[in-house]
Amino acid sequence: MALKKKPVNGMKDIMPLEMEIRDYVQGIIKDTYKDYGFTPIETPCMENIANLSNNQGGENEKLIFKVLKRGEKLKLETAKSEDDVVDYGMRYDLTVPLCRYYSAHANDLPSPFKALQMGPVWRADRPQRGRYRQFMQCDIDILGEGSILAEIELILATTHTLGKIGFSDFEIRINERRILKAMALYSGFSEDDISSVLITLDKMDKIGIEGVSNELISNGYDKSMVDKYLELFEISKQDDALDKLYEILKDYLDKEITDNLKSIISTVEKAKKADFKIVFDPTLVRGMGYYTGTIFEIAMPQFGGSCGGGGRYDNMVGNFTGQSVPACGFSIGFERIILLLLENGFKVPQSADKIAFLIEKGYPNEALPQIMDQAAQLREQGNKVLVVRMNKNKKFQKDKLCEQGYTQIKEFFNK
Amino acid sequence: MALKKKPVNGMKDIMPLEMEIRDYVQGIIKDTYKDYGFTPIETPCMENIANLSNNQGGENEKLIFKVLKRGEKLKLETAKSEDDVVDYGMRYDLTVPLCRYYSAHANDLPSPFKALQMGPVWRADRPQRGRYRQFMQCDIDILGEGSILAEIELILATTHTLGKIGFSDFEIRINERRILKAMALYSGFSEDDISSVLITLDKMDKIGIEGVSNELISNGYDKSMVDKYLELFEISKQDDALDKLYEILKDYLDKEITDNLKSIISTVEKAKKADFKIVFDPTLVRGMGYYTGTIFEIAMPQFGGSCGGGGRYDNMVGNFTGQSVPACGFSIGFERIILLLLENGFKVPQSADKIAFLIEKGYPNEALPQIMDQAAQLREQGNKVLVVRMNKNKKFQKDKLCEQGYTQIKEFFNK
Repeated sequence: MALKKKPVNGMKDIMPLEMEIRDYVQGIIKDTYKDYGFTPIETPCMENIANLSNNQGGENEKLIFKVLKRGEKLKLETAKSEDDVVDYGMRYDLTVPLCRYYSAHANDLPSPFKALQMGPVWRADRPQRGRYRQFMQCDIDILGEGSILAEIELILATTHTLGKIGFSDFEIRINERRILKAMALYSGFSEDDISSVLITLDKMDKIGIEGVSNELISNGYDKSMVDKYLELFEISKQDDALDKLYEILKDYLDKEITDNLKSIISTVEKAKKADFKIVFDPTLVRGMGYYTGTIFEIAMPQFGGSCGGGGRYDNMVGNFTGQSVPACGFSIGFERIILLLLENGFKVPQSADKIAFLIEKGYPNEALPQIMDQAAQLREQGNKVLVVRMNKNKKFQKDKLCEQGYTQIKEFFNK
Repeated sequence: MALKKKPVNGMKDIMPLEMEIRDYVQGIIKDTYKDYGFTPIETPCMENIANLSNNQGGENEKLIFKVLKRGEKLKLETAKSEDDVVDYGMRYDLTVPLCRYYSAHANDLPSPFKALQMGPVWRADRPQRGRYRQFMQCDIDILGEGSILAEIELILATTHTLGKIGFSDFEIRINERRILKAMALYSGFSEDDISSVLITLDKMDKIGIEGVSNELISNGYDKSMVDKYLELFEISKQDDALDKLYEILKDYLDKEITDNLKSIISTVEKAKKADFKIVFDPTLVRGMGYYTGTIFEIAMPQFGGSCGGGGRYDNMVGNFTGQSVPACGFSIGFERIILLLLENGFKVPQSADKIAFLIEKGYPNEALPQIMDQAAQLREQGNKVLVVRMNKNKKFQKDKLCEQGYTQIKEFFNK
């Protein structure tokens, strides 16, 4: 079989310039999250296929790269379906593996446990610009913390990180699954209708309130119900929206829920360390079915969309242990952020001078130790020093080195 | 299907303590290699299966985790063999992907190109203590550099890195494939015998010179040939071994080969930045068939074996491009090093104080911004600050926090 030079379809090789930005951003993310007491952990990139296919992952479960059984376990002749020939799958997110990890190791971990994960995930999505089939996720999660301390810490740490990377003037939108539910029930939708109603509501950004209205009606819901529902979103734009909403929805909602949301918003607003706003957004849905309470998203309207999000998922660890554990997480849209920085010509701040030694062909081997010593001294003084052979086309080589940020070039000629 | 709490067979979850050491060591490796002008790059974890199955990978090719085709491409009913149902495989090393990367992007890369790669690889080996089916590799490679500058830089950078991690008193053993070959031919073995002879020679460490002699003879080789061969290894222990060997082998060997090896050894000896010895070892074989010239290995006898190795593989890029490109690489045995550090109770040097805020349940939400402000101030002063809910079993919680290195604990009680 002929060898293929290109990476596999929909995945990408990372070139030096992008890699430098990725390393820099990863460093800031890691350092900042560690300052907030988050602890890095890692899980294998593969999971038992059963863990990935139990309806926790929603649409992502259709996109799993599956791993073929090996050796005697693989019985291709008698295989009837995919399930017969695979045992593992590539993880499609870091949340399912985290819940498995916590369920296996809770006794050895602090409680609450503040986890930091950075690593690749895989989804066999249709490839498109800026979306790859292997991509990096950066998640922080707090397990075992049922109070709003979790939400506050997650939002403060993530926004602080974004600020340090250089982002400002963004928005954290926040909502509550149980408010979404109460709004639907109050308007006359049934429990069974809710997920379909939310799918339509989720399009508000794109099709506007009129579009949502039309779609709900064409889905067969009564106009009176739809009108009652959409009126709630008008009220949500007023001052003290959460108080007003609570007064209206009180038969369907605990006061604690709106009060907590207000406390999260006001605490973050007062204690924030970056230039952003946090706002209640009753149209925020977030797709994943596993969310049970607060949900939030980073909106960067100037860049057309979300740069990450998260929420509370109190039932997911319980799928592994049978015992539910409060859990809340925030995922930074790492790839989106890198794309934005690349598109804006971001330059990584350089902490050291880059010096290149070019050594002419035929330069005597006996003299190499001296050169290496010089290089070592410059490195000890805090410089980055490249020692390479001088090319025949020296001008081209020097131009390339300049492009890569080498500010000093020292030449060693063969006398 | 029931969910599984354990990671997949032979792979491991990384706990906070080990993760801290891994992060620390990775940081040193990355920083040091960057000081030497190596450029980080990344390739996808999957490769087209053809690239992994063309006999470049030796035994590793039997250990590939293969990825099932997806959607319409998968025709399970008509599948006759594994080849029919898979399209990708998990990479088993970082060298094959690097050669593919270089062949695809050479025009956009500096020449010579000094690459740094750190990332997971997968091998479906029989799991055993300290050996996992997913593990980290750390490679540096220099592509496009045919001279000994490559070997010298690789060895200096790698040993400097090991020294910074804290290793001393180790050995770099170095040899040359073409010397191995010349020794065999000179002794009367044929070209076709060489790989079998080297497999036996490779056991010298374990079975000694007598064992090697016995095995060669029982493999059917003449005793006179075997004696002639093994005498060469006695000569190799004398002073000026490389000069003496050249005099004997001159019909089978270019003088440049032994001269270059001498220059590498003397330059490294003079310019080294760590406490180690570099020695010519004519018994060093290194398994991979793709090596074409120099080969080397890090020996840490006190820890029972090799902690990494590498060599020159001038033909591998050519498999992709049809045009051979000089290439030389050095891989640090990352997992081995982490295991050694863990076993020796290594503690990562702490650059910041770790402070924990414990907040009693029922503490008023209105007072949270003040606490968050205090935490933020301490973080700005360079501390790591954890803010968590106070547990009912406070003593246990505090003990755990001490274990994790928290030296100050501040409690906030609900009055």
